[in-house]
Amino acid sequence: MAHTKTTDADELTARRPRDGLFIRVYFGDGRHIGPGMIELLETIRSERSILSAARALGMSYRRAWLLVDEIGRSFRQPVVETHPGRRGHGTDLTPFGERLIALYREIEQASAAASRTAVDELRAALAPLEAGVEIL
Amino acid sequence: MAHTKTTDADELTARRPRDGLFIRVYFGDGRHIGPGMIELLETIRSERSILSAARALGMSYRRAWLLVDEIGRSFRQPVVETHPGRRGHGTDLTPFGERLIALYREIEQASAAASRTAVDELRAALAPLEAGVEIL
Repeated sequence: MAHTKTTDADELTARRPRDGLFIRVYFGDGRHIGPGMIELLETIRSERSILSAARALGMSYRRAWLLVDEIGRSFRQPVVETHPGRRGHGTDLTPFGERLIALYREIEQASAAASRTAVDELRAALAPLEAGVEIL
Repeated sequence: MAHTKTTDADELTARRPRDGLFIRVYFGDGRHIGPGMIELLETIRSERSILSAARALGMSYRRAWLLVDEIGRSFRQPVVETHPGRRGHGTDLTPFGERLIALYREIEQASAAASRTAVDELRAALAPLEAGVEIL
């Protein structure tokens, strides 16, 4: 179930129609990281709070917490650290949390650069949009 | 709805846990291509029949037909051609259908090659699997 939730998270982050590559990295045993998890970590970094990040992304605190917990259990090192004494900004990313974001964004950028010619050929082959074509 | 269906198709093709990059190419207007559509086209190529391809992939004929129709409407050129007179092997890919497969597989391979170092670093950071970790 935990992994299904994060797959949903990837879909939920699509607020406007996506453009370009959508990438999840699978590890062969059901574990994976994708754009939903990474966006949550980036929002925790800026909000310094899981609760505020959840609100900013329109998800429940419980859901955000479960996602963070799942990411944390997938890797050897924690991705966030909490400071219970602080009011408000009680959560920061760990250096490994930062590294996870950097690696994922690097994978996206390197993949986009490497496949640009092929993607451009696909775009050039698209039909003009008609009224009958449904848009997400 | 049509695009939601193809997103589901991408999920359905995961019969064993995926390994490596999962890539969809989005065109900024809701249209996209992903592994589910491409696998369907490859199976139509080998089966030379939408019905046989649907059976081989465990989907209904209607669903396979709708997916093929959606791909066809997305691009300027058709991806399959049907030969109503023939018994059995009534459908072939068009040259453009072949090109679509080739371009998608090229995007997958180029992206995997370009992000290998980053993916390896992620794999090296994975926690050992415990009994408590759920696997898809």
